[in-house]
Amino acid sequence: MKIGILSAGNIGSRLARAWAAAGHELVIAKDGEDRKIEPLLTELGDKARLGTIREAAEFGEVVLFSIYWPRVEAIVSQVGDALDGKVVIETMNPLGVTADFVHFHDLEFMRDSSTSEDLQRRLPKARIVKGFNLIAAPSLEAAAWAAAPVQANVFYATDDSAAGDVTRGLIADAGFKPVNAGNLKGARQLEQVGVLLHHVADNEYGGDADLIRLALAVVEANPGPITRERIA
Amino acid sequence: MKIGILSAGNIGSRLARAWAAAGHELVIAKDGEDRKIEPLLTELGDKARLGTIREAAEFGEVVLFSIYWPRVEAIVSQVGDALDGKVVIETMNPLGVTADFVHFHDLEFMRDSSTSEDLQRRLPKARIVKGFNLIAAPSLEAAAWAAAPVQANVFYATDDSAAGDVTRGLIADAGFKPVNAGNLKGARQLEQVGVLLHHVADNEYGGDADLIRLALAVVEANPGPITRERIA
Repeated sequence: MKIGILSAGNIGSRLARAWAAAGHELVIAKDGEDRKIEPLLTELGDKARLGTIREAAEFGEVVLFSIYWPRVEAIVSQVGDALDGKVVIETMNPLGVTADFVHFHDLEFMRDSSTSEDLQRRLPKARIVKGFNLIAAPSLEAAAWAAAPVQANVFYATDDSAAGDVTRGLIADAGFKPVNAGNLKGARQLEQVGVLLHHVADNEYGGDADLIRLALAVVEANPGPITRERIA
Repeated sequence: MKIGILSAGNIGSRLARAWAAAGHELVIAKDGEDRKIEPLLTELGDKARLGTIREAAEFGEVVLFSIYWPRVEAIVSQVGDALDGKVVIETMNPLGVTADFVHFHDLEFMRDSSTSEDLQRRLPKARIVKGFNLIAAPSLEAAAWAAAPVQANVFYATDDSAAGDVTRGLIADAGFKPVNAGNLKGARQLEQVGVLLHHVADNEYGGDADLIRLALAVVEANPGPITRERIA
């Protein structure tokens, strides 16, 4: 499958590696200085080539939209209409940033929206899917979970079920278990889970604020034999 | 430990069994008809006795506040000042109910509050802890998870760290792994996870709307050897 990577930062570069290894063909753009991804391009060889933001958007049947949230407007203006009709997997979290470059969860924004709904409004003809927002970049490689007793889950949400199915395959190609979290508004819950995981990191993992070790998995009970009559 | 159960419905009855088995002493109240919990009281023998809402609240050093959300105001008026200074574990979810008795997530309420913050406002001298809101009652017995590769997690949130430590012990006594989700406002995220789990049940588990099989577990990566230089 032809995949455009917008852009190869901490998340995009890791998924680029996984998807190149799974046989996909990539055009990779960098929001910022191209020279920073030269080692990545060298590593991927003929599986990937460098492009502008617009070129990567035009190339991909699927486009990973993994942009630093305060840069969204600038990137959308570079993309123009190149994402119309395409599956766009957006990985963002609504992190605000202070003048001192301190990041915070933009809880006010999260009351009534999500990065996914915002991006869908900006790109009304794109087929937006939320995904990959809950595993910290350094752990976004299947090898990091090799010792875990269950696979880390990658939750996704979309209003376009065919786009969801494509995303499901790409999540599996990256080595993770896909979990369908419903329609695009379900992105709100996925972003709230991002806040929860920071709370858990702070309170159970000694302030591991990068969440470098953590993900969630849906686990299943077998309640059959012990279900009792409802007494409420 | 002396525990008051307010009230023994689907959640309260299951935790009453677990805590009685762990050696705690219980006074159990029922919001509704007492005769419905006669089998439970018979089963628990001298570990538990029946009380009014007020009596159970007075008895407990810790009180499980597991009330049908539309009944909170009525129960608080029966409790009066009996919960002042006590650890109160509230298990509620902000489910609204229509005239036709259809339940729905009260997303409007959830924008700016949580059942935990609401209860703390009503009972300003109680030491409110959120907990046990994310595992469906039929699976709220450790035996249901015996075949799961990781333990289901019970997340909790509180502004009172000593109350949190007590809750942690009681979560373990019930057979689950406690996970500290931060201060009382963290209850907002835990309630959003309740919405997420319903989405997952609908989309991955064939509309298993009671969530009867599902819970979340925090899983850990070992990202050490594969961490790469930041390139953003």
